[in-house]
Amino acid sequence: MIDLNERQRHQVVVIGGGFGGLETVRRLKKADVDVTLIDRRNFHLFQPLLYQVATGGLSPANIAAPLRSIFGKQKNCRILLGEVTGFDLEQNEVILQDDRCRFDTLVVAAGASPSYFGNDSWQKYAPPLKSIEDATAIRSRLFWCFEQAEREACKKDRCEWLTFVIVGGGPTGVELAGALAEISRHTLVNDFRSIDPSEARIILVEAGDQVLSSYPPDLTSKAESKIRQLGIELRTKTQVTEIKQDYVEVEHVGSTERIATYSVIWAAGVKANPLGGKLAQAANCKTDRMGRVLVSDDLTLSTNPSIFVIGDLAYVTNDEDNPLPGIAPVAIQQAKFVAKLIQLRQSGRKSKDRFHYRDLGSMATIGRKAAIAEIGKFKFSGIFAWWLWLAIHLMQIVQFQNRVLILIQWAYSYLTYNRAARLITHPTHNDNEADTSKAIDQTS
Amino acid sequence: MIDLNERQRHQVVVIGGGFGGLETVRRLKKADVDVTLIDRRNFHLFQPLLYQVATGGLSPANIAAPLRSIFGKQKNCRILLGEVTGFDLEQNEVILQDDRCRFDTLVVAAGASPSYFGNDSWQKYAPPLKSIEDATAIRSRLFWCFEQAEREACKKDRCEWLTFVIVGGGPTGVELAGALAEISRHTLVNDFRSIDPSEARIILVEAGDQVLSSYPPDLTSKAESKIRQLGIELRTKTQVTEIKQDYVEVEHVGSTERIATYSVIWAAGVKANPLGGKLAQAANCKTDRMGRVLVSDDLTLSTNPSIFVIGDLAYVTNDEDNPLPGIAPVAIQQAKFVAKLIQLRQSGRKSKDRFHYRDLGSMATIGRKAAIAEIGKFKFSGIFAWWLWLAIHLMQIVQFQNRVLILIQWAYSYLTYNRAARLITHPTHNDNEADTSKAIDQTS
Repeated sequence: MIDLNERQRHQVVVIGGGFGGLETVRRLKKADVDVTLIDRRNFHLFQPLLYQVATGGLSPANIAAPLRSIFGKQKNCRILLGEVTGFDLEQNEVILQDDRCRFDTLVVAAGASPSYFGNDSWQKYAPPLKSIEDATAIRSRLFWCFEQAEREACKKDRCEWLTFVIVGGGPTGVELAGALAEISRHTLVNDFRSIDPSEARIILVEAGDQVLSSYPPDLTSKAESKIRQLGIELRTKTQVTEIKQDYVEVEHVGSTERIATYSVIWAAGVKANPLGGKLAQAANCKTDRMGRVLVSDDLTLSTNPSIFVIGDLAYVTNDEDNPLPGIAPVAIQQAKFVAKLIQLRQSGRKSKDRFHYRDLGSMATIGRKAAIAEIGKFKFSGIFAWWLWLAIHLMQIVQFQNRVLILIQWAYSYLTYNRAARLITHPTHNDNEADTSKAIDQTS
Repeated sequence: MIDLNERQRHQVVVIGGGFGGLETVRRLKKADVDVTLIDRRNFHLFQPLLYQVATGGLSPANIAAPLRSIFGKQKNCRILLGEVTGFDLEQNEVILQDDRCRFDTLVVAAGASPSYFGNDSWQKYAPPLKSIEDATAIRSRLFWCFEQAEREACKKDRCEWLTFVIVGGGPTGVELAGALAEISRHTLVNDFRSIDPSEARIILVEAGDQVLSSYPPDLTSKAESKIRQLGIELRTKTQVTEIKQDYVEVEHVGSTERIATYSVIWAAGVKANPLGGKLAQAANCKTDRMGRVLVSDDLTLSTNPSIFVIGDLAYVTNDEDNPLPGIAPVAIQQAKFVAKLIQLRQSGRKSKDRFHYRDLGSMATIGRKAAIAEIGKFKFSGIFAWWLWLAIHLMQIVQFQNRVLILIQWAYSYLTYNRAARLITHPTHNDNEADTSKAIDQTS
């Protein structure tokens, strides 16, 4: 048993150092409680910019801030690096791999994982983009494909190496496609002797009618025309039916096509962290089909008011009864609400408040100088939306240092189209050289 | 066979994109030759700052520059990402994993690898510091040890997690020890609740009489007193006799001691890349006991004047018949010499020149504001030497972008003692959480 349990104060345990968990801990800074933040990783990851790491524009440390450096001076906060494996709600304990941690109040903000909709075998050939390791693995794979194409004498094989398929037309898929277009059309333009990188095919596959489906149709249309303008092949209403080592099979209104490629990235869907299911089972609560935990109006479990679930792990609806999206602003607002409620309870006022999400707008970037944004009644697209996107994302980066460094790195990249971080570091791709086949065996 | 062989011009093939290979290619920019640079990695690594990555001060991309971005505009240079496996000198061909590459002139600059002096089983527990992957693995391990200590209830076990042993008192070992001292005494000082990171034991083990043995005794003494002042336990005349998962065994004037630790870093020795042995065998030449190829005065093989060996892979002596050290300035001067000789030969003047190393001095850093430098007859130590070291290293970094970013990152780190890149990303350490034992299984 972890020794913090010997303390006398009210114990708040927060699981997950993402946007929700981080904000909860921060807001409890002056509360008369002890806070324990448990995370598997020793850093907070600024996920909205993960695609920049995957495409060599930023380094992992630019978008990741050590949790201990964020909370070093918050004396009521203690950080545990560990993996939560379950819950013992009779004892009010969180079960870790090799330990237990008692709580008076529990905030579960464990986030989401990629979902392959039952086709988990696809993950081997179509990695997701959720972690730093995913991002560096994708980065290695993308640049490795250009290297292989350069060494390939046969034109057909070269084309296959230079075909990139991105599955999923949400913000991540669109950002990745846009960045890949920029890399092949600009960054690498002088780099090769046998191939012309700008001949790379970038295919964006979306099952629905349109990309960025949460935006109004007129913004979506603008985004789609920008995507096409960047030379990206946009395939809407197209389902992926199979992914193998050297091809992806897609279906569009009944007809099937096999696209030869060694590089598929999965940006198609997420499900709740499996901890949601474990918690729901332990507390006798329900989850939705994505594994999110159904919570009360005040974000607590209906069966246990001392347990909160927030962020991507919680199923919460807005006034129109639509589920709230899995985005940072939702998690952050929920965190503020929860931290306030905990403090109210501490002071004896058991407020029966209700969480209300205030939609401050949303934005998605497509590439250099191109984005769409919806803020209240206002809609923006093009360069203004892009500057807005850039400014807001820079402001949000957690650490001062990262903000300045990213600004410089972006300014430099913007002027030169350079991507200094395009390192092929993943062991996979070096081991692979021992392999005479073309296969890339994704081992991690 | 790679299609560049169809070209008509004189073909220069350079193996290795380190300091020697890079400079050779650069210096051949205006030569009437085609240059092919072969490297296993797609980037040049600025090795002198690798210890900064291993200790979370810099990101990998800060000290690595993509080869294609360095040579994108050098039209007579072509880059092949590939692993050289041998030589067919009858055909004048370099053998790659899955291909061959013909040459008229060959420059082998494949560098050095870590040497465990026959105890290769130690590598598993005492990783070397030669590659980006080594550096990020060491970084993960170091910070992981602090995390484990924080979670450990037993004081004795905590001490073991907080014991760091660095084997080898050369520049790398000294730099690592100095950086670790700074991390534990400053960077992490607010970060933990159960442990005091400044209680970490940092032990620097050196088999010889003193650290930094290539420097004059008075500078070495100053370095050693600075090392002790930083709270590092310096153990000279001490041999490592065994390294296991949870301890290292050392011998000092006949008596043996077992030091309990989970973190040993190997900075004790290097040997030549195995390609040196293959080349020597193919060309019927000799190697020294470190595997370096013995070359003629003009850096060619005595049996084949169209093959040059430079850098850490070559055994070359100075006027006093001492072998030249394996440092960047030697490799760079040799590269300049070779590039010039190739051009002279091209123009028909078969100069029988002799390589002469001009020692411009050397310097080693110990930590913040502490370094030693020997430049000609002048010796420096302390803060001036450190500023000199800093300025020279910043100047040398290959890419403009990196130089500016590093300057800012260092300025920031200097002011705040922060190390923003202290991410535990290595898969080892996450997988390890599933393991209830304390062992860290170093799988890569």
